[in-house]
Amino acid sequence: MTQATEEVGVFVDAELYARVQQFYAWHMGLLDDGAPDDWADAFTVDAAFGEPGQANSFLGREAIRASVRARAEKLAEEGVVIRHWFGMTTVDPESDGALRVRNYALTLAVAPGGPPVVRGHAVCHDRLVPDGDSWLIASRHIQPDGSTR
Amino acid sequence: MTQATEEVGVFVDAELYARVQQFYAWHMGLLDDGAPDDWADAFTVDAAFGEPGQANSFLGREAIRASVRARAEKLAEEGVVIRHWFGMTTVDPESDGALRVRNYALTLAVAPGGPPVVRGHAVCHDRLVPDGDSWLIASRHIQPDGSTR
Amino acid sequence: MTQATEEVGVFVDAELYARVQQFYAWHMGLLDDGAPDDWADAFTVDAAFGEPGQANSFLGREAIRASVRARAEKLAEEGVVIRHWFGMTTVDPESDGALRVRNYALTLAVAPGGPPVVRGHAVCHDRLVPDGDSWLIASRHIQPDGSTR
Repeated sequence: MTQATEEVGVFVDAELYARVQQFYAWHMGLLDDGAPDDWADAFTVDAAFGEPGQANSFLGREAIRASVRARAEKLAEEGVVIRHWFGMTTVDPESDGALRVRNYALTLAVAPGGPPVVRGHAVCHDRLVPDGDSWLIASRHIQPDGSTR
Repeated sequence: MTQATEEVGVFVDAELYARVQQFYAWHMGLLDDGAPDDWADAFTVDAAFGEPGQANSFLGREAIRASVRARAEKLAEEGVVIRHWFGMTTVDPESDGALRVRNYALTLAVAPGGPPVVRGHAVCHDRLVPDGDSWLIASRHIQPDGSTR
Repeated sequence: MTQATEEVGVFVDAELYARVQQFYAWHMGLLDDGAPDDWADAFTVDAAFGEPGQANSFLGREAIRASVRARAEKLAEEGVVIRHWFGMTTVDPESDGALRVRNYALTLAVAPGGPPVVRGHAVCHDRLVPDGDSWLIASRHIQPDGSTR
């Protein structure tokens, strides 16, 4: 089950796949709707968050929370709405119950009165660990393709 | 089951989730492919359709039909193709069998000979009521993030 | 099961739908990550690939491979990253076990140091034939909506 998706196209069952899809729709919706604290709560206490080249690497939920709060405040001041689309999802279960999840991440920004603008695209690599009926994000590695800032 | 997705991330089972995804792929495809009448038929007779700030609120299937027909005719005259992506879907079942569905809605427009342009982004809140093996849309509330017109 | 999606909204079961979604996430990821040979291997030996108006029609896996290799080399020279989103997926099973799959296909391009740019949008019509636990693409018909080149 840990073979790379590149090898054969790993298929997980529909229940797992649908839950992972719903996890991201819920989780990124929290951020986009201005609930950065709830968003941060979905990381493990010792989560690693890394985005190379963006001076944007953090260790631990509280560091992630501080960063996302600052970003949310800046967006609120500017009146900018961000919408994150996560998709093209692949899921590789590990033997310990964790999941390696890869998503394409498309970021759209809408300034006041403006049209939506594609702000960035990245490939997002997460490790999800079970947490009751859901998961916590134990690590997120963002591989940016490009962005407007 | 009616708790807000913000609370815990409501997960519906894969069969329901996959059907809802297919419903939107089918339904918005009708509109994009120039079948506004078929699109309108997926609303209940007394459906409410609302898009604040767009002078775009209608009550009843026939009012929705008249509006979408006019829009489709205008697009056809201009030779513009619209493609709607619905995604980042969350589904909250209600106790009466209806579904509260939230989608991100990305609208791309392609003018004759032109490239695709992001025209708008919104969050689309639907209430789906069972109709045989599928659903009808009893209400649609569109929360626009921004658009080019 | 072969009725057009336009008729009633064909719903396939969640296991099939989730596998088809994963197939495209895996397959287009191969191309975007610079593995055109692996991408080509997912076509049948005698696959038909057609994109009207793009001088872009090929017959057979090796012709598809040669074309995609040339395109990948050109992108690599230019330092351009392409990301393909396939979504709004509908699946119509045929009586012989093949699947007719329709996807919206959004193409984003990122030049060195640049932001992501919407390069094209198309509707992609595939015929998938069973191949062990997965599928091979027996035909791909691309219906372009518009593109920047």
